[in-house]
Amino acid sequence: MHKISMLGAGFIGMFYTKTIQRSRSKDVVSMVYNRTPENAKTFAETYNIPRWTGDMDEAINDPETDVVVVALPNHQHKEAIIKAAQAGKAVLCTKPLARTGKEAKEILDAVEKAGVFHGYLEDLVYTPKTLKALDFVRKGALGRILWARSRETHPGPHAPWFFDKELAGGGALVDMGCHCAEICRSFIGKDIRPVEAMGHLDTMVHPIAAEDFSIGLVRFENGAIAQIESNWTFRGGMDLRDEISGTEGTIWLNHWLRTGFEVFTTAGTKGYVSEKSEAEIGWLFPVGNEEDGLGYIEMFNDMFDAIDEKRKPVEDFYDGYVINCILDAIYKSGETGKWEPVEI
Amino acid sequence: MHKISMLGAGFIGMFYTKTIQRSRSKDVVSMVYNRTPENAKTFAETYNIPRWTGDMDEAINDPETDVVVVALPNHQHKEAIIKAAQAGKAVLCTKPLARTGKEAKEILDAVEKAGVFHGYLEDLVYTPKTLKALDFVRKGALGRILWARSRETHPGPHAPWFFDKELAGGGALVDMGCHCAEICRSFIGKDIRPVEAMGHLDTMVHPIAAEDFSIGLVRFENGAIAQIESNWTFRGGMDLRDEISGTEGTIWLNHWLRTGFEVFTTAGTKGYVSEKSEAEIGWLFPVGNEEDGLGYIEMFNDMFDAIDEKRKPVEDFYDGYVINCILDAIYKSGETGKWEPVEI
Amino acid sequence: MHKISMLGAGFIGMFYTKTIQRSRSKDVVSMVYNRTPENAKTFAETYNIPRWTGDMDEAINDPETDVVVVALPNHQHKEAIIKAAQAGKAVLCTKPLARTGKEAKEILDAVEKAGVFHGYLEDLVYTPKTLKALDFVRKGALGRILWARSRETHPGPHAPWFFDKELAGGGALVDMGCHCAEICRSFIGKDIRPVEAMGHLDTMVHPIAAEDFSIGLVRFENGAIAQIESNWTFRGGMDLRDEISGTEGTIWLNHWLRTGFEVFTTAGTKGYVSEKSEAEIGWLFPVGNEEDGLGYIEMFNDMFDAIDEKRKPVEDFYDGYVINCILDAIYKSGETGKWEPVEI
Amino acid sequence: MHKISMLGAGFIGMFYTKTIQRSRSKDVVSMVYNRTPENAKTFAETYNIPRWTGDMDEAINDPETDVVVVALPNHQHKEAIIKAAQAGKAVLCTKPLARTGKEAKEILDAVEKAGVFHGYLEDLVYTPKTLKALDFVRKGALGRILWARSRETHPGPHAPWFFDKELAGGGALVDMGCHCAEICRSFIGKDIRPVEAMGHLDTMVHPIAAEDFSIGLVRFENGAIAQIESNWTFRGGMDLRDEISGTEGTIWLNHWLRTGFEVFTTAGTKGYVSEKSEAEIGWLFPVGNEEDGLGYIEMFNDMFDAIDEKRKPVEDFYDGYVINCILDAIYKSGETGKWEPVEI
Ligand SMILES: NC(=O)c1ccc[n+]([C@@H]2O[C@H](COP(=O)([O-])OP(=O)(O)OC[C@H]3O[C@@H](n4cnc5c(N)ncnc54)[C@H](O)[C@@H]3O)[C@@H](O)[C@H]2O)c1
Ligand SMILES: NC(=O)c1ccc[n+]([C@@H]2O[C@H](COP(=O)([O-])OP(=O)(O)OC[C@H]3O[C@@H](n4cnc5c(N)ncnc54)[C@H](O)[C@@H]3O)[C@@H](O)[C@H]2O)c1
Ligand SMILES: NC(=O)c1ccc[n+]([C@@H]2O[C@H](COP(=O)([O-])OP(=O)(O)OC[C@H]3O[C@@H](n4cnc5c(N)ncnc54)[C@H](O)[C@@H]3O)[C@@H](O)[C@H]2O)c1
Ligand SMILES: NC(=O)c1ccc[n+]([C@@H]2O[C@H](COP(=O)([O-])OP(=O)(O)OC[C@H]3O[C@@H](n4cnc5c(N)ncnc54)[C@H](O)[C@@H]3O)[C@@H](O)[C@H]2O)c1
Repeated sequence: MHKISMLGAGFIGMFYTKTIQRSRSKDVVSMVYNRTPENAKTFAETYNIPRWTGDMDEAINDPETDVVVVALPNHQHKEAIIKAAQAGKAVLCTKPLARTGKEAKEILDAVEKAGVFHGYLEDLVYTPKTLKALDFVRKGALGRILWARSRETHPGPHAPWFFDKELAGGGALVDMGCHCAEICRSFIGKDIRPVEAMGHLDTMVHPIAAEDFSIGLVRFENGAIAQIESNWTFRGGMDLRDEISGTEGTIWLNHWLRTGFEVFTTAGTKGYVSEKSEAEIGWLFPVGNEEDGLGYIEMFNDMFDAIDEKRKPVEDFYDGYVINCILDAIYKSGETGKWEPVEI
Repeated sequence: MHKISMLGAGFIGMFYTKTIQRSRSKDVVSMVYNRTPENAKTFAETYNIPRWTGDMDEAINDPETDVVVVALPNHQHKEAIIKAAQAGKAVLCTKPLARTGKEAKEILDAVEKAGVFHGYLEDLVYTPKTLKALDFVRKGALGRILWARSRETHPGPHAPWFFDKELAGGGALVDMGCHCAEICRSFIGKDIRPVEAMGHLDTMVHPIAAEDFSIGLVRFENGAIAQIESNWTFRGGMDLRDEISGTEGTIWLNHWLRTGFEVFTTAGTKGYVSEKSEAEIGWLFPVGNEEDGLGYIEMFNDMFDAIDEKRKPVEDFYDGYVINCILDAIYKSGETGKWEPVEI
Repeated sequence: MHKISMLGAGFIGMFYTKTIQRSRSKDVVSMVYNRTPENAKTFAETYNIPRWTGDMDEAINDPETDVVVVALPNHQHKEAIIKAAQAGKAVLCTKPLARTGKEAKEILDAVEKAGVFHGYLEDLVYTPKTLKALDFVRKGALGRILWARSRETHPGPHAPWFFDKELAGGGALVDMGCHCAEICRSFIGKDIRPVEAMGHLDTMVHPIAAEDFSIGLVRFENGAIAQIESNWTFRGGMDLRDEISGTEGTIWLNHWLRTGFEVFTTAGTKGYVSEKSEAEIGWLFPVGNEEDGLGYIEMFNDMFDAIDEKRKPVEDFYDGYVINCILDAIYKSGETGKWEPVEI
Repeated sequence: MHKISMLGAGFIGMFYTKTIQRSRSKDVVSMVYNRTPENAKTFAETYNIPRWTGDMDEAINDPETDVVVVALPNHQHKEAIIKAAQAGKAVLCTKPLARTGKEAKEILDAVEKAGVFHGYLEDLVYTPKTLKALDFVRKGALGRILWARSRETHPGPHAPWFFDKELAGGGALVDMGCHCAEICRSFIGKDIRPVEAMGHLDTMVHPIAAEDFSIGLVRFENGAIAQIESNWTFRGGMDLRDEISGTEGTIWLNHWLRTGFEVFTTAGTKGYVSEKSEAEIGWLFPVGNEEDGLGYIEMFNDMFDAIDEKRKPVEDFYDGYVINCILDAIYKSGETGKWEPVEI
């Protein structure tokens, strides 16, 4: 059983808390921090969390807490992680680990130096479909993997800081391409080195400085190609799909809009259909259990089990660091117009 | 936290145990019974269960245990439940509750008389998709429900007792039609009375006395129709689909063969693809997390939460009893060739 | 090359004319009749037809014409066909052939006595998917056919006469169940005798005397079951699906709402999406070529080729007659509440 | 009515002939050429073609013929077209128009100089789904087009010359990327100039000099991106899909493996399932009418109608030329590792 301090009472903090405290689970969030203390208080009341605070240090150093979860905007990950590492707490950080490879390296060094447990909360690698698909791949059902396409697109984020290049570290690529890159890397093989990357970035529809559209290709040392499509220009909801090609087979995963759940309604329900859903009437494609469909459940299971079993989780900060390096190369290629080396 | 005695170390006992003891869960199976004690022992070792026995009474009366789960063949449900009721334990029984409405009534009377908690393990009402679909219906997205079709078919069961009319209480209809009937009833409204039923039953491909093919129609007091298709003659895996029609909308659920997970393999994996899967190469349609896809997780969550909260679960033995009455009417119609009243 | 007199300038007359006169086709509609001559004139102008009339006899007896197509409301089929037979013209009639088996028999007798070519325009047996599916069945891919489900449902017809029991011969069952029955019969085998039928009919949402909802089961002499679902209560567009089960395989056909063509639009196009489409924005599921998707192209190909080759077409009036007998039995069962013999 | 000389009695010559001479069509193939005259003879007999020859000039200059269709390997397009142009015949050429932009330019110059009708047989722009999708786009349903992905992949071609870089002009990119490029261009707008291209090419599984794997990106002057995925490394049949993203909407087209036609068979049919199908048992995804599904029918309709109406067809040699220029730029980028201008 673990006691968790949740840093951040926003969108993902809410999802994480609901996942951790789901029915029959033994782990609990026992402290929540938010810069605006009132929001921390409301959040604590909503999710039945005993303590709340507007002081990050207090949350991290809470004596009951053994695990700190970082659910803050990207520019705050480093500070929060370093504090947690110094406090000797296990630390789990949402994606992306950092805004750049360089920042990610500092983070990685800090946790390694402190010797604390670190888990990278890359949920999409943990969806039940992805886990079983990876199992098929591991057992050889697809032969040698040649190509993996991962796509995460929707009409745009819910909070303004995502649009601030400085705070977020970029636009749609750093926000969602980090998922796509790690999904592809998981299918191609996390022991296979990504060598070089090519990218196209553009600002197509939003009045922002950062890119709202991106396509990246990453070549791995064995010739396999990762194809990363992430943008904030898609219409129709959230498009979360993966395609994997091997010498002996193919896998197609559709996580969101076509999962065998189809609703037509002229009445609507005046409520939440599913994340980023764009419509409330007509043909809708909800998701049964979003926490599960997005991998949050299996992800926290792995994290807490790993702590208990004193092993590394499937995703740790080294993975987060590699992803930042890949994204850096795609960003650079977007500027130079040529393939750029992935510098890990 | 609950301690469970699992009666039955077969197919469903295994699924239940894996579900209850899944990662980060606080409930445990602490005793397992099987008529062949060696199998109980092996099962206990595999699933890390402290105690096992070949004596049903010992399992039920285990002092640590507060919940008895009945995962035995249909003809043993009554005996096991009555013993558990007498022992004052909460009792959860797999589907179907009984072989006939009459037997179900005796079971219901026993638990009510003993005043114990009773839960009917109708998992398919608890799949994440079904729960969310029911929520759409409750919120009015479909208007008034007119028709619900529920279909569960596959090439045939895994154990010989399913084919024994006496032990099982019938064939494909009692085995799987019980799921379909309760799914339809949940969508139409569990407060709406099923009035009469019509059925066609046949033995089409298996060398058995019981039916391997069935279609049933049930008319509810408000005119809504439940259409139940269950058979052991389907080829292509397991076909688990529901369709619901209302005055304002439609819901289509596909739980098994088309869930956004598609694999083509020429290599295969020489292993388990998914329940009742008929092929290991070519295009396959696995399920991410079967326990979840089949509703086991949410079902046990509801059961144990209900015990803790001292409320009725979504499905209790009264529901199991109603379903047996509906099936009785379909069976009778299969003989008389006309609509027969549902006698509850 | 054939010259056709089209009787009826309504919805189906339009579809037929567009199909027959499609690009690069050698057959032409050379005369059109409508009871309101102005509409015949407008129709003739729109579709480039040389002659039009408000007099049915004139249209049938047009000396240039060798084929008469009956595209009139159900109550007018008999009169038109008998006139065409007497005029010695090949006659093609839309579905249903008649309003009852008795009326169909009179029609069949008339064309047989006159010795004219007769074709029953059951288009859904001719969709490219159905033709290829039938080919799979014929080649043994499914083994022995056990069950066929055919479903045609939508929110309701476009013209008031469909709601008039007297003119139409019934409601949704006679209107669309005729398609479903012949589709099932084609898969089960047109040489296998339908023996008895069972039906449930109801008027659920429309303020009409006829049924707007129907389910029928037909048992064939070899035990195979046809399951016919036709209603005017479906929401979400037009639901046209078939499922066929055999001892060795399964076929699923979706003709309308899920054909690999998916559109999401917030702008709409202020126009026709596809037949019975219920929405113009949100997720839409258009059909590429409706004439083709509904089988009109292959149907007329077969009809005109059959005339040229002096052979029977795949569907002739005998088939239309059998279908009316099946529907009669379903209607009767709807009243008596028991299985009724199909009297052919 | 047109009389056609078919040059080439191979795979595509067969498809074209069956399409042109389909039931009720007025156009006929009246002459067929093949370098091996015996094959021409057999072909002529099979498809009921009055004349055949092993002499290309004889076929082209056949006095009855008014249209020459070039269905020869890529390296023979130029010679055949120039001869047809000199003979003053209308000439239709299969894809790709040529092996390079330079060769395509010479072809274009020749037909323009001769003043003959020229049609580029880019069938995939003419599939019924694509035509209707283009109509949605034209009517504004998607707003401004931002991105189009077109994918054509399968396990590899049927004839050895496709693998010969010299004869074919390249590998999978020139063979199938030509389709993808023109599909994207049609959705983005044929009046929008493609500016630069980026490509990754590799030889992943086949023992050939040419690429069997390719990904290309093309940037248009308005910022829209075409994403071209063509390879001979896909397993599972033929993957023919398009995705189009606009500011107001999305279109997803699946032309081959998921069209609402699903078959499971343990028996198989020992025959043709559909083009490039990799399996005969298990779950199969046939196509109803392949000629139609691939656009051949609407393509020839447009070509012959255009000749009759003395207008340009939707696709002419100028389009073929643009496509070759785009492919040239992708090939060059594959070598230089940077974006390369499209030189038209
Ligand atoms: N794993 C996933 O799928 C997923 C999904 C969404 C977000 N995220 C990540 O979670 C993190 C938070 O995103 P979110 O969607 O919850 O954002 P949010 O804006 O909804 O919430 C962010 C939280 O941080 C606080 N915050 C916001 N701006 C701040 C600032 N400038 N200084 C200090 N505190 C600030 C807010 O008060 C809030 O508590 C980000 O790193 C994001 O990338 C991950
Ligand atoms: N909820 C579901 O989806 C689902 C799925 C499968 C089975 N079930 C139900 O679970 C129950 C058990 O089915 P199963 O598939 O696990 O069966 P099984 O044959 O795999 O296992 C049954 C267990 O009962 C024991 N058993 C078998 N025959 C017995 C007999 N004659 N006397 C005493 N013990 C006997 C076996 O040793 C075994 O422990 C049945 O009621 C069945 O309907 C439910
Ligand atoms: N094969 C199919 O899929 C299909 C589809 C639709 C209709 N149909 C059939 O086609 C026939 C016509 O249906 P429709 O949809 O074209 O109908 P409609 O009402 O659109 O057109 C019917 C035509 O008959 C004329 N008409 C209508 N009522 C009349 C009356 N009382 N007396 C004389 N003429 C009358 C109209 O002027 C019109 O020309 C019906 O038999 C119907 O079942 C078949
Ligand atoms: N539009 C499409 O979708 C599509 C599909 C397949 C092929 N094609 C195109 O059609 C053309 C022919 O391809 P195919 O698949 O029919 O090929 P094929 O090999 O099946 O047939 C080619 C024909 O050309 C002849 N031929 C082959 N090699 C030759 C040579 N070296 N010299 C002279 N004649 C030769 C053969 O005898 C045969 O008649 C190619 O340009 C190809 O790209 C288009």
